[in-house]
Amino acid sequence: MARKKKGLLVVVSGPAGVGKGTVDSALMAKHPEIKMSVSVTTRAPRPGEVEGVHYFYRTKEEFDRMIEEDAFLEYMHVFGMNYYGTPKSFVESEREKGNHVILEIDVQGAMKVKAACPDAVLVFIAPPSLKILKERLVGRGTETQESIDIRTKTALDELNMLPHYDYMVINDVVDEAVGEMESILTAELCRTVRNKELISKLTGGETI
Amino acid sequence: MARKKKGLLVVVSGPAGVGKGTVDSALMAKHPEIKMSVSVTTRAPRPGEVEGVHYFYRTKEEFDRMIEEDAFLEYMHVFGMNYYGTPKSFVESEREKGNHVILEIDVQGAMKVKAACPDAVLVFIAPPSLKILKERLVGRGTETQESIDIRTKTALDELNMLPHYDYMVINDVVDEAVGEMESILTAELCRTVRNKELISKLTGGETI
Repeated sequence: MARKKKGLLVVVSGPAGVGKGTVDSALMAKHPEIKMSVSVTTRAPRPGEVEGVHYFYRTKEEFDRMIEEDAFLEYMHVFGMNYYGTPKSFVESEREKGNHVILEIDVQGAMKVKAACPDAVLVFIAPPSLKILKERLVGRGTETQESIDIRTKTALDELNMLPHYDYMVINDVVDEAVGEMESILTAELCRTVRNKELISKLTGGETI
Repeated sequence: MARKKKGLLVVVSGPAGVGKGTVDSALMAKHPEIKMSVSVTTRAPRPGEVEGVHYFYRTKEEFDRMIEEDAFLEYMHVFGMNYYGTPKSFVESEREKGNHVILEIDVQGAMKVKAACPDAVLVFIAPPSLKILKERLVGRGTETQESIDIRTKTALDELNMLPHYDYMVINDVVDEAVGEMESILTAELCRTVRNKELISKLTGGETI
């Protein structure tokens, strides 16, 4: 059955401490066809980091050339020092293979990706409440009080962007959040707008 | 956790013989919160049929009054004799309880429902091919050659309406089709447009 479809680009945002990484890792562990987007950066590799796995490491000049060549879905400066960007080529080649690509990114980045790639699926992972989010940040034991206050404030700004996302997944119980992510992917693949070619084959008398 | 949401109205169409009934029955057997819409009809109950279960039985005069009162999501004549209609009240009261309502209806009816109820989810159940659909109709052993030809011709007209639906579920393996229906329901409940109230609570500092 040649029903293999183009994979999805799934943009995942959510406040620090909400458990994006936990949900995405659990999802990828169950589904080898789901890949994490690999970013390009101008920062040096840290010990143990691998080119093409953790990042694609490029010089500032190479990065600038990629910007000129419109090779990024989005890119940004961090601390006025290093550049980070999402290369179109990686995302596209995985999607063409039928793999889904997850891109964990902040709300500003997500809006840029949506503009550059309108068929991206935007998922916001939300906490059951700001209070619970704050408790999770405190529970990490690695954040200063100031950092917790800043992150909680930022979280509210991010939550205000929720209506710009397609889906909201509440990370209360991780397994349930993962199940909802799976359903979102399955449902998106069933959308008629993503199946124009199959529909055309079907009405043309072909088997799909 | 007061996260109970308004249920969905799921419009299900698909050509005769595609297995809509099989898929919907399997879905409802697994999920008691999914109900089949009960229509109003002017035809007399058949032996064994129960008011409010198979149909709501009404006189022609009562039906006309319901039309005047805008009490239908959609209605139609059949054979210039009996009227059939989908009452808003049943659909709405079930949805308010958090139940999902499935409405099996033809493509014309589906378009009327979409216009009357823009938040309805439209699912088209498609066969893997017209050829396979025809084989299924032949396999029933209850259809004349003429009836099979008419149904196959109608099926093509219906398939041409597929782009007006939100989702396409190919009924190849029933369990897979049911799984896709489940995913569609779960994903739809995660859509931010359906969660404005929750989002507003969350940004207001409440637990959802």
